[in-house]
Amino acid sequence: MTDPDCLFCAIVAGRVPSSQVYSDDLVVAFLDIRPLTTGHLLVVPRTHAPSLASLPEPTGAHMFTTAQRLAAAVRASGLPCEGVNLFLADGAVAGQEVFHAHLHVLPRNTGDGFSVTGQRREPDRAELDTTATLIRAVL
Amino acid sequence: MTDPDCLFCAIVAGRVPSSQVYSDDLVVAFLDIRPLTTGHLLVVPRTHAPSLASLPEPTGAHMFTTAQRLAAAVRASGLPCEGVNLFLADGAVAGQEVFHAHLHVLPRNTGDGFSVTGQRREPDRAELDTTATLIRAVL
Repeated sequence: MTDPDCLFCAIVAGRVPSSQVYSDDLVVAFLDIRPLTTGHLLVVPRTHAPSLASLPEPTGAHMFTTAQRLAAAVRASGLPCEGVNLFLADGAVAGQEVFHAHLHVLPRNTGDGFSVTGQRREPDRAELDTTATLIRAVL
Repeated sequence: MTDPDCLFCAIVAGRVPSSQVYSDDLVVAFLDIRPLTTGHLLVVPRTHAPSLASLPEPTGAHMFTTAQRLAAAVRASGLPCEGVNLFLADGAVAGQEVFHAHLHVLPRNTGDGFSVTGQRREPDRAELDTTATLIRAVL
């Protein structure tokens, strides 16, 4: 399936240029054109899937395997790469901007300006167990 | 393989308590005890793997599938969940604190205080293509 208005569908189809690093039957990987760090890659499914819920599980699994291989490749490429973050945003509130599922592969280095911030809480065990029970109930 | 000094190995073995939501032959998922948002989950392999490079590909793939299912479960659980981030840190510079690979599942809501920040650059196509060539060369 393809969405004619989707940027990543257009990249997968070759209608919009990209700097591609990998492609197979299920996924395509290319450089983000507005990288957060040098070598910032996106792994996308060939088939349009706007959300994590609409992404077939084998495709998601292969996106992760591809990201693992790309992380190893970036580390071996000679580009500065002391670490790697994998990141996926599902939904606008989570920072998703293109509604075609994509897994970010972010090479990381000291002082690269990228950071993840939030307020960590320390709930007691009873609260954690209550939360776990809610999630287990629908698994 | 198990590392006797590893916190997540101890949780997998049941020597350290956790609020578990899921477990199978390959992975265990439980609530982070210092959650960034309510329902913050960690998916970890049963077998000790300190890094993304040491994580067997089928295990990594299954961690992602499990994270997909957990994201759907959190959305269905009744907990506030307008979106989800998946996040993995590989290496200290990337924010890894426990050296047993783990995939974060972060429920997201407006105003939850979690954010990802960085300086996006806009390199020209020639620079992107040069970077892509370096990565492709080692894939």
